[in-house]
Amino acid sequence: MPANASPDRHHVVVVGAGFGGLETVHHLAGAPVRITIIDRRNHHLFQPLLYQVATASLATSEIAWPIRHLLRKRPEVTTLLASVEGIDKEKRRVVLDDGSTITYDTLVLATGARHAYFGHDDWEPFAPGLKTLEDATTIRRRILVAFEKAERETDPQRRSALLTFVIIGAGPTGVEMAGTIAELARVTLPRDFRHIDTRQARVVLIEAGPRVLAGFTEDLSAYAQRSLESLGVEVELGHPVSACTADGVVYGTKQLAASTIIWAAGVQASSAGEWLHAPVDRAGRVIVEPDLAAPEHPEIFVIGDTAAVMAPDGSPVPGIAPAAKQQGKHVAATIKARLRGEITQAPFRYKHAGSLATIGKRLAVIDFGRIKLRGTLAWWMWGLAHIYFLIGVRNRLSVAINWLWIHTRDQRSSRLITQGSANIDRR
Amino acid sequence: MPANASPDRHHVVVVGAGFGGLETVHHLAGAPVRITIIDRRNHHLFQPLLYQVATASLATSEIAWPIRHLLRKRPEVTTLLASVEGIDKEKRRVVLDDGSTITYDTLVLATGARHAYFGHDDWEPFAPGLKTLEDATTIRRRILVAFEKAERETDPQRRSALLTFVIIGAGPTGVEMAGTIAELARVTLPRDFRHIDTRQARVVLIEAGPRVLAGFTEDLSAYAQRSLESLGVEVELGHPVSACTADGVVYGTKQLAASTIIWAAGVQASSAGEWLHAPVDRAGRVIVEPDLAAPEHPEIFVIGDTAAVMAPDGSPVPGIAPAAKQQGKHVAATIKARLRGEITQAPFRYKHAGSLATIGKRLAVIDFGRIKLRGTLAWWMWGLAHIYFLIGVRNRLSVAINWLWIHTRDQRSSRLITQGSANIDRR
Repeated sequence: MPANASPDRHHVVVVGAGFGGLETVHHLAGAPVRITIIDRRNHHLFQPLLYQVATASLATSEIAWPIRHLLRKRPEVTTLLASVEGIDKEKRRVVLDDGSTITYDTLVLATGARHAYFGHDDWEPFAPGLKTLEDATTIRRRILVAFEKAERETDPQRRSALLTFVIIGAGPTGVEMAGTIAELARVTLPRDFRHIDTRQARVVLIEAGPRVLAGFTEDLSAYAQRSLESLGVEVELGHPVSACTADGVVYGTKQLAASTIIWAAGVQASSAGEWLHAPVDRAGRVIVEPDLAAPEHPEIFVIGDTAAVMAPDGSPVPGIAPAAKQQGKHVAATIKARLRGEITQAPFRYKHAGSLATIGKRLAVIDFGRIKLRGTLAWWMWGLAHIYFLIGVRNRLSVAINWLWIHTRDQRSSRLITQGSANIDRR
Repeated sequence: MPANASPDRHHVVVVGAGFGGLETVHHLAGAPVRITIIDRRNHHLFQPLLYQVATASLATSEIAWPIRHLLRKRPEVTTLLASVEGIDKEKRRVVLDDGSTITYDTLVLATGARHAYFGHDDWEPFAPGLKTLEDATTIRRRILVAFEKAERETDPQRRSALLTFVIIGAGPTGVEMAGTIAELARVTLPRDFRHIDTRQARVVLIEAGPRVLAGFTEDLSAYAQRSLESLGVEVELGHPVSACTADGVVYGTKQLAASTIIWAAGVQASSAGEWLHAPVDRAGRVIVEPDLAAPEHPEIFVIGDTAAVMAPDGSPVPGIAPAAKQQGKHVAATIKARLRGEITQAPFRYKHAGSLATIGKRLAVIDFGRIKLRGTLAWWMWGLAHIYFLIGVRNRLSVAINWLWIHTRDQRSSRLITQGSANIDRR
């Protein structure tokens, strides 16, 4: 055991190696602590680019890295691949899936969120969401298999359903998915098929609210909608979906036959609130104190998508990577201050750097508050920002090469159907 | 429908888009035929590098490409994602999984082989083989999860079993797997773990025969064995395995507790022989005529790993990519000659270019017949040859970058545990 992992050091346990958890560990470097970081996956996932795996642009290994490898130069940090089953707040310990426990002095819960179906969990098999690498390869397989089946299908109605792709929810993920699938069908695939014209595929983006990208200003929303429509996406606003089945979707008074449905409409926080028996908001996020601590437990912090936090202007802090990172940094600062003997409950203050969303090839919208950008320049800024934030020089290079390739050659490098490939449905 | 896909053209149906099938299609370019190529996967797989996916060096998309994309510039070629269920030789048609049929004028069966357990199919769950992308990600997951579990295990005996990796069969695949796992444990992983010393992992290569790489000369075999041992691999020769269980393996009179077992000991041809009701050899390969046609059916050819063919010197043609490609080229030439009106049954003549196997980092053996190479130079030749043969400029570049990265930084880019990651066994 390394000297700086000595058991009498203050023990910080971090659950979740997403943006918030890793940032906490990062900013605790040099502090007189030992750290255990627990995740049920072995990899940190760059979620903002997950839709590019789902649409066959990037390989899984280009947006995910082994957590323990990211932390290999931190001998005081132990990485554990394990699921947390609960928390014993009185004895200050975390209970793992194998029944073993880990005692903490300070606990940081950064366990993220899953997509949610608002009480319609039975829709999940027909309308998978996009949160994990497995979600992304599942969606990729469904999209690619739909085109493959359409190529073999002789019945025009069934063929049309196979070539209809529905995305539910027009937030950034929904808009990105719709734009990219439209490009896949119109630009990448046409020459590869003989019996179908992939350009006739329908991509339908359904949104319950009155506009796409509701988090942006109205003119950026309108621009995004026009851009989507010019890519061939049908945008259906003001229609909550009332059913998802193997045959398609029902929204408003309309019924649409579609074999591929993708859910991008809502998220639900992880189980942190249940573990803590703490008050949660409607999305299951723990309502934290201004310093991000759990109520009555200053030694427990909850950050990222699993915490309900207010920005200084009274609006809720959005569930995006920069917000989680700022919270991780804040918590690390609080822990370090306390270890220096300060009694601090300094409130977290969210600084919104800006909102970004891509619409498709070389089109994006960016809202920096006073400055608003749209179009190709915005896309390049979006691309540079994401490449810059990707962890690790190598992947930065590899992602950059891949993008360059895609955007100069209209190819997709990762069009692989795996797992379900041998089991083509029989009908 | 393109003019050159007219239904009155001679119809060549190729089943299987491996090296043999694709080469047949390639050499039929310009011939007055229409072609349908059928595969139950959507991708062509560069099998010689599959072990690098299994050992986390390469990503799946770096060794596999969508078949229809490879053939996009051939309008006379139709690609079908489908499973073949049987062949009606009298009516000259192929029966697909959905009950539909495809009529052929000439049929080429290039359906490859699967790993085989010599009557011990019950070993498969404990000792997966390596033939598909899914096999590779399964093995990768098992290897990585074993290290993760060992990090959490406190019982020394169980920890030792978790850190024991058994490879059964010391042909090229077994030797490559053993050498690469040894490097993973000794070079790549040590800094990433806190509770275990991954360098103490045991890698045991078990072979029933008297030497490793039996297809090579004795001195190259001896060199390969010394190289493996210097990497820390334990080589156990002359011991057939008599049991594979969840606890480990039994070989000779020895019992070895191991949680990871990899099968590299034998292959069995695909079902082509059953479809044809044709005589097969012990490994299930169709015993073909000298021109690679099925007995009594000059319009059906069987090539690659699913055909039993003799070389001019009377030895069996090995199940390697160059052999399959030569056969594909030969069959295409025969088809073209017949379409010109020639009555030909020209025998296939195999030309052995050489045998190559890597042992680990910068070590390989090459047998060109008169010229034999070993060591670092052989490794570079092996690497160059494989990069050269990889299909597609982009992947050539990407694989080259990845290798350069691995061999200068001792990193592995694709250490992802997917699919089973959330379901860590509970004990």
